[in-house]
Amino acid sequence: MAKEKKLVESITSMEEDFAQWYTDVVKKAELAGYTSVKGCMVIKPAGYAIWENIQKELDRRFKETGVENVYLPMFIPESLLQKEKDHVEGFAPEAAWVTIGGSEPLQERMCVRPTSETLFCDFYKNDIQSYRDLPRVYNQWCSVVRWEKTTRPFLRSREFLWQEGHTAHATAREAEERTIQMLNVYADFCEEELAIPVIRGRKTDKEKFAGAEATYTIESLMHDGKALQSGTSHNFGDGFAKAFGIQFADKDNTLKNVYQTSWGMTTRMIGAIIMVHGDNSGLKLPPRIAPTQVMVIPIRQQQEGVLEKANEVKEALAAGGLRVKLDDSEKSPGWKFSEQEMRGIPVRVELGPKDIEAGNAVIVRRDTREKITAAIGELPEKVAEVLEAIQKDMFESAREHRDAHTYTAATKEEFKQIADEKPGFIKAMWCGCQECEDAIKEEVGVTSRCMPFAQEEISDTCIWCGRPAKHMVYWGKAY
Amino acid sequence: MAKEKKLVESITSMEEDFAQWYTDVVKKAELAGYTSVKGCMVIKPAGYAIWENIQKELDRRFKETGVENVYLPMFIPESLLQKEKDHVEGFAPEAAWVTIGGSEPLQERMCVRPTSETLFCDFYKNDIQSYRDLPRVYNQWCSVVRWEKTTRPFLRSREFLWQEGHTAHATAREAEERTIQMLNVYADFCEEELAIPVIRGRKTDKEKFAGAEATYTIESLMHDGKALQSGTSHNFGDGFAKAFGIQFADKDNTLKNVYQTSWGMTTRMIGAIIMVHGDNSGLKLPPRIAPTQVMVIPIRQQQEGVLEKANEVKEALAAGGLRVKLDDSEKSPGWKFSEQEMRGIPVRVELGPKDIEAGNAVIVRRDTREKITAAIGELPEKVAEVLEAIQKDMFESAREHRDAHTYTAATKEEFKQIADEKPGFIKAMWCGCQECEDAIKEEVGVTSRCMPFAQEEISDTCIWCGRPAKHMVYWGKAY
Repeated sequence: MAKEKKLVESITSMEEDFAQWYTDVVKKAELAGYTSVKGCMVIKPAGYAIWENIQKELDRRFKETGVENVYLPMFIPESLLQKEKDHVEGFAPEAAWVTIGGSEPLQERMCVRPTSETLFCDFYKNDIQSYRDLPRVYNQWCSVVRWEKTTRPFLRSREFLWQEGHTAHATAREAEERTIQMLNVYADFCEEELAIPVIRGRKTDKEKFAGAEATYTIESLMHDGKALQSGTSHNFGDGFAKAFGIQFADKDNTLKNVYQTSWGMTTRMIGAIIMVHGDNSGLKLPPRIAPTQVMVIPIRQQQEGVLEKANEVKEALAAGGLRVKLDDSEKSPGWKFSEQEMRGIPVRVELGPKDIEAGNAVIVRRDTREKITAAIGELPEKVAEVLEAIQKDMFESAREHRDAHTYTAATKEEFKQIADEKPGFIKAMWCGCQECEDAIKEEVGVTSRCMPFAQEEISDTCIWCGRPAKHMVYWGKAY
Repeated sequence: MAKEKKLVESITSMEEDFAQWYTDVVKKAELAGYTSVKGCMVIKPAGYAIWENIQKELDRRFKETGVENVYLPMFIPESLLQKEKDHVEGFAPEAAWVTIGGSEPLQERMCVRPTSETLFCDFYKNDIQSYRDLPRVYNQWCSVVRWEKTTRPFLRSREFLWQEGHTAHATAREAEERTIQMLNVYADFCEEELAIPVIRGRKTDKEKFAGAEATYTIESLMHDGKALQSGTSHNFGDGFAKAFGIQFADKDNTLKNVYQTSWGMTTRMIGAIIMVHGDNSGLKLPPRIAPTQVMVIPIRQQQEGVLEKANEVKEALAAGGLRVKLDDSEKSPGWKFSEQEMRGIPVRVELGPKDIEAGNAVIVRRDTREKITAAIGELPEKVAEVLEAIQKDMFESAREHRDAHTYTAATKEEFKQIADEKPGFIKAMWCGCQECEDAIKEEVGVTSRCMPFAQEEISDTCIWCGRPAKHMVYWGKAY
């Protein structure tokens, strides 16, 4: 009993210290750990298995839209990085530089890719000759490096895993369509698989990607009311094409610049899952993304027949297509419950001698802790139903939380007061000029998250300067 | 017609210049390309799709044996790399060093991982406390960097993709068993999926991995008679555990060192597929690993009903679980045939107005060029059968080639003569001392590939020094 308490007590409550709660869950659910390499983490099996499921599902959705996977080098020669002015300014300060190779100083130093626009441009320059070569819709799964000063597992680390899509098109319109298409792939993925509701919108010029004409984003709200940028899709127009000289012979036999896009989603989504769904018992995984969906936990397993029956149940659930494990370790059932909850496994099936006698088992939902008694023979269908209900309810509950923490401000005073008192999104009108955006960040401490596709007209004037409003903006404190 | 010739003519014949033939196939089958980053390649969609299939199948086989995937940092601080003496000597000369991060010189430089033993040791040191934490059977899919002077796509490049498994065990015996188990996973994978026959054996001390007690290897023979090391599995004993201090409290409450293994397979296997199976028409992919298994090519596709029928056939083959594409481009059928052959797609289905009238289609095997007429309604079963036959026949044909190029030498003279005149493996007895091994490499130009598990007794004495023989060894020239 003392031991059982220890596991739960070992995480700080989220109300007390959300940041510490987050770190505790990462550690106790064994998702990631620290390493001797400052600012870099090790992703442990429980964390990596979530990433594998993210990869599998996202990759499937990409390929449905015609994406092909490739692999480009991890190094970028300095001269290549410098070809696009805004881009180098955005990324050079955080670069890690390789200066020695094979015991000799390099003639030209190379940075470890922070992102691969320049490499894809260099590649496309030779790969694309004619309109017949277009579109190119390539993606790679890899790691990237950004030399951040402050780091946190999954949310911000010097090396992280991601996918980066890079496309080239014959027309500006096609590039814009692809940019929006991929943003919608991300949004649907987050909502349907991760049960995380998102706001789809466009970044302001201040917040857009270095070198992009337009950056689109999906923004989600964490349990503490802070926002997380969860996926971005950039339209480069022909800016990179001009800088790199990527031209194609069109049908009319004239040389034209290509139009490009890029889009990425990262391991930070594991952080989002923790912070959107987790509670004081630990992680809570949406069933569709959970590496283990069901943990079968026998009660009084030393009694004859219990383990056999538990094994039968496990096999039946597996045969029903569920990802299931049996915890037949020597630990007490209570300890096993705590572990299963800490690791966020969506459902446990409890099974003891009395249940078996009655031909039943007890299904316990991780999200609501509701207990459902079901006939052993009907478990596969019942558990599948419960998992679907959990997936749906987790999304709804995240959406309710998000909506309950989304506020509307019509005046500067209102805006300041909400920002001071109520963590969450603030919807407010903006004139579109960067001075106001800068001032709001400086004086109120919130940044523009996005100009949502779903615009509302809260008032006619910018809440900051009072001039005519151009956009409704989501503002918030962000990770 | 001129155009059609061009595609085939564009590859050098393998008899004329094998190295150039290889490069031509890599280029014309669009597997990989060169980049501005010296010694690094871009893996194009056709090449990467092969790697994805390799990953999928190998990962499935790993997981069946209890392997879990993780991700560790790509950087190794210099002090960490230096902890195991032999290991650092083996890898430091080829390291790429990061010396600047975030615009500032690093206090300690870090190398980009050439392999991750040291990182896993550093991780296991904290992660493993008790016998309950053992075994640890972890693997990661990533890229590694070795600053090679001479590079060739897939076979040897400064950055390549691989998986590296790293395990920790309570006993020396368990570590040895895991080492052999993983070697057998590699061997079975190569033979069953890639249709590449391999010799399983142990490396001599001279050729073993830097820091290993024993290295096991699978060796395959390329079409030109050169050997390719195709996968290795290392038993470290407790050498790394001592260097890094990785200890666990055993059941008897005493502290003991763990025993470790590592094992890896890389994108070089794509090079092996090219060089074992390819011919003067290009690549030849074993059906199980081929991203596209069947190409449907309509004849006289402008005639009414042909494209519709071709589409029906494609859909039927896809419904039958085959990976199939339809080439309905404007190119001539002959050009399409050449492309399908160049890309190594195992089967094409030709379908023209006359075939359709007769209710038939023609299946053409890429490996033998045999044509098989089949009723359209029976295509899914027929093509599946043909693909199975191709898989089996490609393995047999590679094995025959390997066996026909495996020679036995009982004396020094015989050995030298074979090495001079006949490209291939040479089986010969060896006394076990490095002087002979060095002299053979120096004077004959072949290296020891492995001491096969299946030992034969060719004679009693070492072919070089005449002293009593200890091992039968496979010798050869290697990539």
